[in-house]
Parts: sequence; structure tokens; C-alpha cells
Amino acid sequence: MSLLVVGSVAFDSVETPFGKVEEVLGGSAMYFSTAASYFTDVNLVAVVGDDFPEEPIEFLKKRNVDTTGLHCVEGKTFRWKGRYGYDLNEAHTLDTQLNVFSDFAPELPEDYRDADFAFLANIDPVLQLEVLEQVNNPTFVAADTMNFWIEGKLNELKAVLERVDMLVINEGEARELSGEPNMVKAAEKIRAMGPTFVVIKRGEYGALLFANDQVFFAPAYPLESVFDPTGAGDTFAGGMIGYLARRGAVGDIESLRLSTVVGCVMASFVVEDFSFDAMRELDDERILQRFKDFHDLISFNPLHSLQ
Amino acid sequence: MSLLVVGSVAFDSVETPFGKVEEVLGGSAMYFSTAASYFTDVNLVAVVGDDFPEEPIEFLKKRNVDTTGLHCVEGKTFRWKGRYGYDLNEAHTLDTQLNVFSDFAPELPEDYRDADFAFLANIDPVLQLEVLEQVNNPTFVAADTMNFWIEGKLNELKAVLERVDMLVINEGEARELSGEPNMVKAAEKIRAMGPTFVVIKRGEYGALLFANDQVFFAPAYPLESVFDPTGAGDTFAGGMIGYLARRGAVGDIESLRLSTVVGCVMASFVVEDFSFDAMRELDDERILQRFKDFHDLISFNPLHSLQ
Repeated sequence: MSLLVVGSVAFDSVETPFGKVEEVLGGSAMYFSTAASYFTDVNLVAVVGDDFPEEPIEFLKKRNVDTTGLHCVEGKTFRWKGRYGYDLNEAHTLDTQLNVFSDFAPELPEDYRDADFAFLANIDPVLQLEVLEQVNNPTFVAADTMNFWIEGKLNELKAVLERVDMLVINEGEARELSGEPNMVKAAEKIRAMGPTFVVIKRGEYGALLFANDQVFFAPAYPLESVFDPTGAGDTFAGGMIGYLARRGAVGDIESLRLSTVVGCVMASFVVEDFSFDAMRELDDERILQRFKDFHDLISFNPLHSLQ
Repeated sequence: MSLLVVGSVAFDSVETPFGKVEEVLGGSAMYFSTAASYFTDVNLVAVVGDDFPEEPIEFLKKRNVDTTGLHCVEGKTFRWKGRYGYDLNEAHTLDTQLNVFSDFAPELPEDYRDADFAFLANIDPVLQLEVLEQVNNPTFVAADTMNFWIEGKLNELKAVLERVDMLVINEGEARELSGEPNMVKAAEKIRAMGPTFVVIKRGEYGALLFANDQVFFAPAYPLESVFDPTGAGDTFAGGMIGYLARRGAVGDIESLRLSTVVGCVMASFVVEDFSFDAMRELDDERILQRFKDFHDLISFNPLHSLQ
């Protein structure tokens, strides 16, 4: 089933304890759509400036991502600069230049409007609402957000939450949005705000899925080399929602469990190299192999007695 | 198979955001031996002062823990006072009164010396070595330690590591001991110091088991009510090593995986109430039910194709 994503395409400058890169390809929609493209047709909506090169657009097209909705306008592309310490779980933003993104008013091409699945990446909730106005009765809508919107546009964010099926959010943001340190209670409170499903991303500790009375936990794949977590959250979401769209079944817990694991598998690749680079080397075989390794990592036999 | 544990029995005073308790029963050997007693025969070595009541000793005896090695000497029992913030993963020690523990020289009763399994709880590595001198050829020895010994008695600790089969250690301590922030590399370095198996405890995020080329991950059971993590690490170790002793097979990965999960299951009970209280209410049925819930929490079907 077709999957619409609305988010950012950007140039990132990133420092980690293991090195640094300047103005490399990034942005939530770039990571999300690439990860999702392994599972389903993706329709991308984002904006770039006239300094944006052709190559990434060609890359997306080769991955069958529809880039009709990627608007190129006069001006400079969105730029983000951040640093990670040895605790790679949290980015410290050093600089944000919104550039053409500051006037971003997502406009969906006509044939995007019947999208079955949609993902509203971490953008202004006012824009997320504008997107929701333009889609005709989608089967499933997921959204991401961040502390900036929780603190600055809580009412608009709550209006978004009332209209989405799933919120995919970081652990710290889940605490902030719910006012609850305990994740089980935090998820319960967020579900009361609207989303049937809440997915809490815990960085190197994996992800928790809350669905009605069901909880599912997927760890992050333990890697020997973690270089740069930039894009991991969006890649996770791309794998997860992409796989859900592939299955076309959103209510059954087995699809939700599998999709959470697929998200973790996809995210495990992106952190192994700087920024977007690892995403260029992926193929079905590597993804499937890591899924199998992942299954081995956490499988154990049932126990029928303590003795 | 019989399991020897050498550690502390103490009075704990604990503050968490959810309440406080004063001078309640605690200590690594108390938590460990109670958790392990659900799976195997336990021989306890520890020291208490003449202020220590009869009731906990009766409780241990009822659980078939051999308390011949629990020496009662003149003076006051070890006391620990700590506080946890909303991040319940790390205890802040407010006060430590070693009392009779400062002269603790573990002496094993004659019939403890043929122990098949042994656990050296977090005590001075010099004492851990003294225990190792007194046991005859045990099948399997596991040890715990902490930053205090890593910083103050590294050589003695390294001598212990050369002689144990498994180290059970917190994530932060694993980083400190190995000088490696990445857990896969940290475990590799620690394994090079001696232990065949390294188990890294991650508090509310679960535990990682490293065994040769195998990695296994067990999440912590996500609880709605987490009151007090005191004793969780020792209860985890008690469940894990107790179950390994029950199986009597230490080399096979399936036993190691199951024992890691059993450790997480046992630890999940202790954090639901203040200090030792939750350990008094356990029975086989509750343990088995939570194991089943745990299996549900992380199980998913294998994937044979991305399509």
C-alpha cells in the first residue's frame, strides 16, 4: 500500500567522538523514505533549495520513491548542525538554519491524496494538521514530534494526536508530553490523548510498543561500531511504518511486533556509518540476514516449570 | 546443584521519589539467596551483628537456604543509606556504616567447600579471592563488583577475574572497567581478562549476555509501578545463577539465555515494592506466570522475506 511521508530534507553537519562530517545529506523524510522504500511505495513531500544536488533525488527515484512532492524553491536548503557525546543517545543541536524550510507549506500532489498510510515526521504540528486536511481517509496515520513542539505548540500537537493512529516518540519526549517518568504509565496517558498505538524509542536500548493491553519490546541490535546516530529514529520509523504498509494490516499484534523489529533492524544499519552513507549500501539480503540475527539475539524457549 | 553465595546482609535506608524506608532488611546475599532459593539449594556466607533479628534467618531457613555460614558477631550490622531520583537506574549512596562488615573474613563451613556453583557478590576482591581459596574445584563461579573496587583495588579485582567463569556487572561499571563506551567492545575486553561469560545489567533496560560469539538480550519487564530498585541487581543474579545451578549445564547457550530471562523475571518483582518486601510474597506460580508474560513481551515470528 502507498505510504506518504512529509518531513525534511536537509544538509547535516555532525560531530561525534569518532569523527565529523560537514553538510552531508540528511533530514527526516530522506531517512524515512529510503528505509520504507524496501517495503512499499513511498510518496515524498518536502522542500529543498536551489543549492540541492540532483544525485539524492536520482537515488530516491531508483528506490522507487515518488519525488513529485519534493519541491525545489529559490534559496538555501535546511541545514542542521549537531554534536553527540559518548552517550550517543542524545543530540546537542549547535545550529539550525531553516532557510527554505521556514516557509514550508506542504502541498500534496493530487495523486498523493489517496495515500493509505501516512507518516508526519517531526515538523511543526500546524503543518502536520495541514497535511491531514489534504489526505482522503487514510487507513493509518503515524506521527513523530519533539520537545520543541511539546513546549511551544502543545495545543496544536494535541489536535494532531487526536487524529493519528500512532505516535512514534523518544523516551525523554514521552516523559515530557505525559508528565510521567514511568514508560507504562506515560504510554497510557499518551494513548488517552488519541493514538491507539504508542511507540517509544529508547536509542541504543531499543523500542517499546504499546497497543491496547499489549506491550512489545524490541532491543536495539548490539553493534560493535556505532559511529553516528543521526537519522536512526527516522530510519526506525521508515522501517516500521513501511513494513506495516507492506502488510496492510495495522490492527493485528503480530504485524505490529514484526514492524517494530523491522524498524530496529533498519536503524541498526544507519548508525554504523556517518549520516546517510550506510543507507546507500543496503539490500534485501543484508536486511533479511540482520533480521535473522536479531531473532537469534532475543529468542529463548518457553519454560513450563521452574524445576 | 548446590550454590554458594558470599556477600552482605544489611539494613538499608532508602529514599525514592515514591517514598522512603528506614533500616529495612537488605544486602546482596539476602536478595541473591532468596531469589536463587526458588531454583536450587543455597549455602549462605555473610556476617551480621548482635542487633540482627531472628525473623529473616527463619525466613531464609524456610526457603531452604543453609544459614550455617551466616556468622553473628558482637557489634552492629552493616547499614547502607541511599537515594534514587526519577531516573531509578542509579543509586546515590548517602551513608555507609560497615560496622561488623569491616572485619568480615569469610570462612566457609566444611560442607560448603564442595559447592558446585558459587557467586561472589560485590565485596572487596581480596575477600573474593579468600573465598576462592576455600572452595574445591567448583563447576562454575560468577562474581559481581563495583566502581569502588575498580578504582581502588584493580589488581586484586583482575586476579579475581582470571579465576571466575562469569562477571555480572552494571553497564557503567563495564565501561569503567574496560575503558570502552561500546558494550560489545567492553564485553570483549572484559572477557579477555578472564571470564568466559559477561553479563551486563542495564537497569530498567534489561541485560545483555556475552558468551563466545553469542550475544543475547533480555529486556527488563516493563512495569507500571517501579518503587525501589534496591536489590534488583542481586535478585537478577540470584535468579540467573540459581537457575543455571538448577540446570547444572553452564556451557550451552539455551541454558544461559533462559537463565538471563529468569534473572530479569526475578528482578521485576523486587522493584515493585520497597526493599525486600516483594521477595516475601513470591511463589512458583507467580514466577512462572511472569516468565510466560515475558516470553509474550518479546516474541515475534521469523521473517522469511521482506515482501
